[in-house]
Amino acid sequence: MEWKAIAAEKKSRIDAAIPTEWRIEMPQDDVSAMAYPKESGLLTAEELAITESSATDIVKKIAAGDLTSVAVTTAFCKRAALAHQLVNCSLEFFPETGLARAKELDEYYAQNKKTVGPLHGLPISLKDQFRIKGLETTMGYVDWIGKYETDESVLVTLLHQAGAVFYVKTSVPQSLMACETFNNIIGRTVNPRNKNWSCGGSSGGEGALVSFRGGIIGVGTDIVLEQQPWLHDSKVIPMPWRQAEEDAVKSKIASGGLTLGFYACDGNVLPHPPIIRAVETVVEKVRNAGHSVIAWEPYKHPHAVELINRIYASDGGTDIFDTLKASGEPAIPHISALIDPSMSKIDINEVWDAQLEKWKYQCEYLAAIQAFEKKHGVELDAIIAPITPTAAIRHDQFKYYGYASAVNLLDFTSVVVPVSFADKTIDIKNAAFKPLTEIDNLVQAEYDPEAYEGAPTAVQIIGRRLTEERVMAIAEEIGRLLENEVAS
Amino acid sequence: MEWKAIAAEKKSRIDAAIPTEWRIEMPQDDVSAMAYPKESGLLTAEELAITESSATDIVKKIAAGDLTSVAVTTAFCKRAALAHQLVNCSLEFFPETGLARAKELDEYYAQNKKTVGPLHGLPISLKDQFRIKGLETTMGYVDWIGKYETDESVLVTLLHQAGAVFYVKTSVPQSLMACETFNNIIGRTVNPRNKNWSCGGSSGGEGALVSFRGGIIGVGTDIVLEQQPWLHDSKVIPMPWRQAEEDAVKSKIASGGLTLGFYACDGNVLPHPPIIRAVETVVEKVRNAGHSVIAWEPYKHPHAVELINRIYASDGGTDIFDTLKASGEPAIPHISALIDPSMSKIDINEVWDAQLEKWKYQCEYLAAIQAFEKKHGVELDAIIAPITPTAAIRHDQFKYYGYASAVNLLDFTSVVVPVSFADKTIDIKNAAFKPLTEIDNLVQAEYDPEAYEGAPTAVQIIGRRLTEERVMAIAEEIGRLLENEVAS
Repeated sequence: MEWKAIAAEKKSRIDAAIPTEWRIEMPQDDVSAMAYPKESGLLTAEELAITESSATDIVKKIAAGDLTSVAVTTAFCKRAALAHQLVNCSLEFFPETGLARAKELDEYYAQNKKTVGPLHGLPISLKDQFRIKGLETTMGYVDWIGKYETDESVLVTLLHQAGAVFYVKTSVPQSLMACETFNNIIGRTVNPRNKNWSCGGSSGGEGALVSFRGGIIGVGTDIVLEQQPWLHDSKVIPMPWRQAEEDAVKSKIASGGLTLGFYACDGNVLPHPPIIRAVETVVEKVRNAGHSVIAWEPYKHPHAVELINRIYASDGGTDIFDTLKASGEPAIPHISALIDPSMSKIDINEVWDAQLEKWKYQCEYLAAIQAFEKKHGVELDAIIAPITPTAAIRHDQFKYYGYASAVNLLDFTSVVVPVSFADKTIDIKNAAFKPLTEIDNLVQAEYDPEAYEGAPTAVQIIGRRLTEERVMAIAEEIGRLLENEVAS
Repeated sequence: MEWKAIAAEKKSRIDAAIPTEWRIEMPQDDVSAMAYPKESGLLTAEELAITESSATDIVKKIAAGDLTSVAVTTAFCKRAALAHQLVNCSLEFFPETGLARAKELDEYYAQNKKTVGPLHGLPISLKDQFRIKGLETTMGYVDWIGKYETDESVLVTLLHQAGAVFYVKTSVPQSLMACETFNNIIGRTVNPRNKNWSCGGSSGGEGALVSFRGGIIGVGTDIVLEQQPWLHDSKVIPMPWRQAEEDAVKSKIASGGLTLGFYACDGNVLPHPPIIRAVETVVEKVRNAGHSVIAWEPYKHPHAVELINRIYASDGGTDIFDTLKASGEPAIPHISALIDPSMSKIDINEVWDAQLEKWKYQCEYLAAIQAFEKKHGVELDAIIAPITPTAAIRHDQFKYYGYASAVNLLDFTSVVVPVSFADKTIDIKNAAFKPLTEIDNLVQAEYDPEAYEGAPTAVQIIGRRLTEERVMAIAEEIGRLLENEVAS
């Protein structure tokens, strides 16, 4: 069968999975989808309330017998159905399976007066990278349609054991290797706040669904870690959540004793004005709370970006292009940003050299931190930085991912904190802008205060490798200072 | 200059570093070198006593002012000089630098009445893989002679900061990739117990020196870890010694509550009789102490051995052979056992596939452990196994390293425990032997009760990844039950 027919058949299966009574008239003109859950009339007041509660509240109520999993699952399935119709975010939708599982859990609870685990009855959405037995895992590839899993991912097993209910798999870019969510199966997933903006990637479908509240961020690391995933997956480091680390940083927070570094520009690409303002806002809030915030000189980030691009492209795209060839589907345009098909595959000894370079760079970065600490006589708790040079971006305009990829190369901990929204009256074009690089010019040229009006901004909080306890606590505190909730 | 001349010049520098007054008449007939420290008359009674004490005792005495670092360093330098003359174990010997450092440390102590760190004044030998500023690091390659380091290894920095004194770098096989210590610079390092036996490899020079007490095992992980090496080296996982883990297993030990698995054969190569007896001895001792010991079925070890060989050889030996080509030296014969030059370099996508296979195998092994625990209703604390199929081996006879390499592939924790010695009256040839594989036949054919009389035997204690606290405690207990000291 031709790839277009295979993709169309899969797309029609996803659409057909939405029960007729949950289908809506598609709005034509609105750029934002955010009002539809209320306006469509599809969800009852109780269902709206459920889908707008926190995961913690929901599991507490189910565990206390104040809510059933069927009620909660129905609410999220309805809202996810709406989300998919409005922003095109699902690669698999299976409300019937979810509701059957919810019913079983409710029956278990009724009989035993206890839960099966800490996530008893909570619907959890999964990106279409995780494997569930009996379902497809497309990773955005047409070639993987029709290959049904006979096994499941370790995280899926652990979440299931903890009592989670699965009901939807969310969209991803073809191959995952892109920062916008587009594939040849269902096309583009858009941002629920503004359909002209991207939802990001590779977890873009997940981001769109959750911000629409058709899904919930509910997987606390402490809950997963309680199940000792390292007993099942050799890649997981056997490290439980270290409460003492969290307590230590919390006591610094309480006494105004944090020391944070910050940078607004990585030396490659200057962020758009709303992002620079986001960094400045966070720095000011943290300083006003009595903590110390010192400028951090990003150590050779352009080198890091070049190096990780070389590593990403080390097989010359063979892995991706072979998978595309198998079905005949074309590459999405975004892939060329990361995997340049004109690059030839490099040799294994060159890969080893690149890995050695990476290790050397990581050690040099650690040395730079040590030098900073010595110079200032402090312990550096974390660094505030942009995570992208732009607010939620217009489609096909994501050109530079170096703010994230340099941190990936370092294997450092990073937690993203939403800050505020672009404001055309404050975030005017940077008249003094002089490009550092060609890509810098390209990125800055994309800024248009009108087009980005209201686009959400964020920063990342960066810590050394495996310092999640510390970085999460700092991100949480910054969220509190911003009077925001923290997304991670 | 021709490679032979370069190697000869380096060798003569090593020999010349031994002061005339520390040189001895070379014995002709003795197979063992172990009696020479006493018989040579080179060391005073005090120096003999010092070099036969534990590292812990030495650092305590120096810290209490009861010994000087100069006295200790002199004693170890003399004994190392003897070792090198008898078993050919050094690739660099620098007693003058060591003694100058010892003098400085003694002066510091005299002035400040305190030590610079927990290893103050302790001589530490380093394998010629670690980098020390101003010295060569040959890794057994002629090509690396004459390249003087401008930087040092992180471990060297940390040991130096802790107060260690360096005085010798010990021999390694060319490229490190062999289990016997032979290179084209100084030739072969032999076993101090019997010059017909190998000292092993890649840390063979270190093993020979330490068993001769020309060096000391003194680098406790707890001491190193106190210096938080992960702040300097990105490859180090930020995990301090977990006392609670050690305490938990110690309480099991105290109550006879351990559950250990064991295997004597990995399904590829049957060990020689002295090794099988070593495993049986340990099993019996542990059972007699009240613990539970259950047969463990090694999970697909032949597959693991094939897979890790494929990964070792993935560049077709390019890295090694290019280095050899640079100087013109030939490959040592041992390398062909691991790096088959007839194998062609594999493709990066094939390497990725091998890495995926490795991950899959690791997860399957974890699942096998889970199944074992479920079946027997126990928690598996560790596994007792051979570490080599032979006792200390005759030269050029090391053919099968799968007992170690399968555990390496798993990235599991392994601690080696010496058990006893081959005994020709007990360890008779296995008359019922039927080879499992070609290599099995080859290995078993090497067994000769006469030739191996008195050769030391050992087992390894294996635990899951990053379970050092648990495995060390169990190894220590097994050593205690054997009335041995534990080498790790």
